[in-house]
Amino acid sequence: MTRRFALIIDPVDASEERADFAETFTVVDAAAPALSVGELSTQRGDGVFESIGVVDGHAQEVIPHLERLANSARLCDLPVPHQEQWRQAVAVAASECPAGESVIKLILSRGVEHGPTPTAWVTAAPASDFTKVRQVGIKVVTLDRGYGLDVAERAPWLLLGAKTLSYAVNMAALREAHRRGADDAIFLSSDGFVLEAPTASLILRFGDRFTTPAPTGGILHGTTQLSVYEHLAENGLDAGYDRIPASDLPRADAAWLVSSVRLAAPITTIDDVDVPVDHALTSELNHYLLSPRD
Amino acid sequence: MTRRFALIIDPVDASEERADFAETFTVVDAAAPALSVGELSTQRGDGVFESIGVVDGHAQEVIPHLERLANSARLCDLPVPHQEQWRQAVAVAASECPAGESVIKLILSRGVEHGPTPTAWVTAAPASDFTKVRQVGIKVVTLDRGYGLDVAERAPWLLLGAKTLSYAVNMAALREAHRRGADDAIFLSSDGFVLEAPTASLILRFGDRFTTPAPTGGILHGTTQLSVYEHLAENGLDAGYDRIPASDLPRADAAWLVSSVRLAAPITTIDDVDVPVDHALTSELNHYLLSPRD
Repeated sequence: MTRRFALIIDPVDASEERADFAETFTVVDAAAPALSVGELSTQRGDGVFESIGVVDGHAQEVIPHLERLANSARLCDLPVPHQEQWRQAVAVAASECPAGESVIKLILSRGVEHGPTPTAWVTAAPASDFTKVRQVGIKVVTLDRGYGLDVAERAPWLLLGAKTLSYAVNMAALREAHRRGADDAIFLSSDGFVLEAPTASLILRFGDRFTTPAPTGGILHGTTQLSVYEHLAENGLDAGYDRIPASDLPRADAAWLVSSVRLAAPITTIDDVDVPVDHALTSELNHYLLSPRD
Repeated sequence: MTRRFALIIDPVDASEERADFAETFTVVDAAAPALSVGELSTQRGDGVFESIGVVDGHAQEVIPHLERLANSARLCDLPVPHQEQWRQAVAVAASECPAGESVIKLILSRGVEHGPTPTAWVTAAPASDFTKVRQVGIKVVTLDRGYGLDVAERAPWLLLGAKTLSYAVNMAALREAHRRGADDAIFLSSDGFVLEAPTASLILRFGDRFTTPAPTGGILHGTTQLSVYEHLAENGLDAGYDRIPASDLPRADAAWLVSSVRLAAPITTIDDVDVPVDHALTSELNHYLLSPRD
């Protein structure tokens, strides 16, 4: 998955009036030097991002992603991105994506140290092939996230609701999962509640009810989870938000990690305990998630 | 504080045998593009760093910083940096520093996504002028770090002992401190113990005893704190490591935040409670910290 295309967004040029933002973008070689060593994204992980799935050149759920980017920016005291400017940047990037699945990444960095403005860029790259993972499923382990469920509200400087570039812990959790022979992880709060995966949301089914941890307590509200919930509701299914004790996990009748690029990955084991896989529903969910959606 | 000088370290060229690493470094324009958008430092804050103070061209405490960089790398499953190669890189960067105070920053990133090696670079820049801060002192507020004191040992994937590039929370804590009319912050554990500042260590004095939070519980062992302790010991003073309840803070007879570039900043208030300032000792500490040290 090499980045094949990248463009830099002019951060000072986000006036409401102009319709031709695309003319202000600078296309850069994704493999060539484009950022200076003074970039605060690189020095301090100081910025926010989004990853958008692209199917046959159609960028999925663009507005929900841009809304979450704006929310992350607000939580980090960054200038709120101009939605129309970024929408056009995504459209330019999507037009460079070939048939099949790709990923567009949006980055809003605090900019160069002591510089006047943030830095912003968009990249596009072919996605890894997740076809088999979507069918065969993934093994997951639970890992303590270290925070109590109520800390996000009490300590907003922990940025728990923001999708920041400071993802070293998320990556370390994935490495720990691999060390334990699993494919992915589910974070638990220090007080024993289910949260989310390092780069995905968790959806569980207990009997006829689908549930996901309520997006408080610092859980990112997953755009793919929202899409799946919309689809489940359209099919008359019961899908809600709950406070889920970790001790409920072994009772799940089905479970998925859902995210923008891998889409719905059925979970086959949690901490080595088997979870039933609903192959028919998983296949249907991925078929839906691969259809063009706005 | 604009970065004036930067060099890239060849990560595959760290053989024990060669003495001429300096010939393998690539000097780059610190203001020009040098890093690609695929850099994992910039996409995920995935890497580790150190900041080294430089006084009149002499880089301070280089080996302790390189040892901590190596420890951070180990905690993050990164290739351990080759100490002699980095020592030479620091020497080259220091030779570019003018008279007065500068800062050298070392960065070891996981590299470009799906790339074969880490990326590593060193920058040098003039330091901000902290002369007045060292005399007048700083106001600090306490902020919850969200983690219990025992979490680091239980959950190493939280990388609490590593100095990673994922510093968004540290920066947000400083912004919160500024919003509250303070200059800096002291993090507390969720169970009420004193930890460290977002970019500095805390040293307190109670009566004749100097104390700092024990560098477990995910506290970074401060290189400047170690230097200060060495100096205090040479002067026959009692300096130790303790588990310090936050409720002890208002009783402190003196307090400092110490770090590699700002050095010893005396604390004048903690959460608006006055702390006595020992001007004579502070001045002596900074005189010592500004003297050439290895």
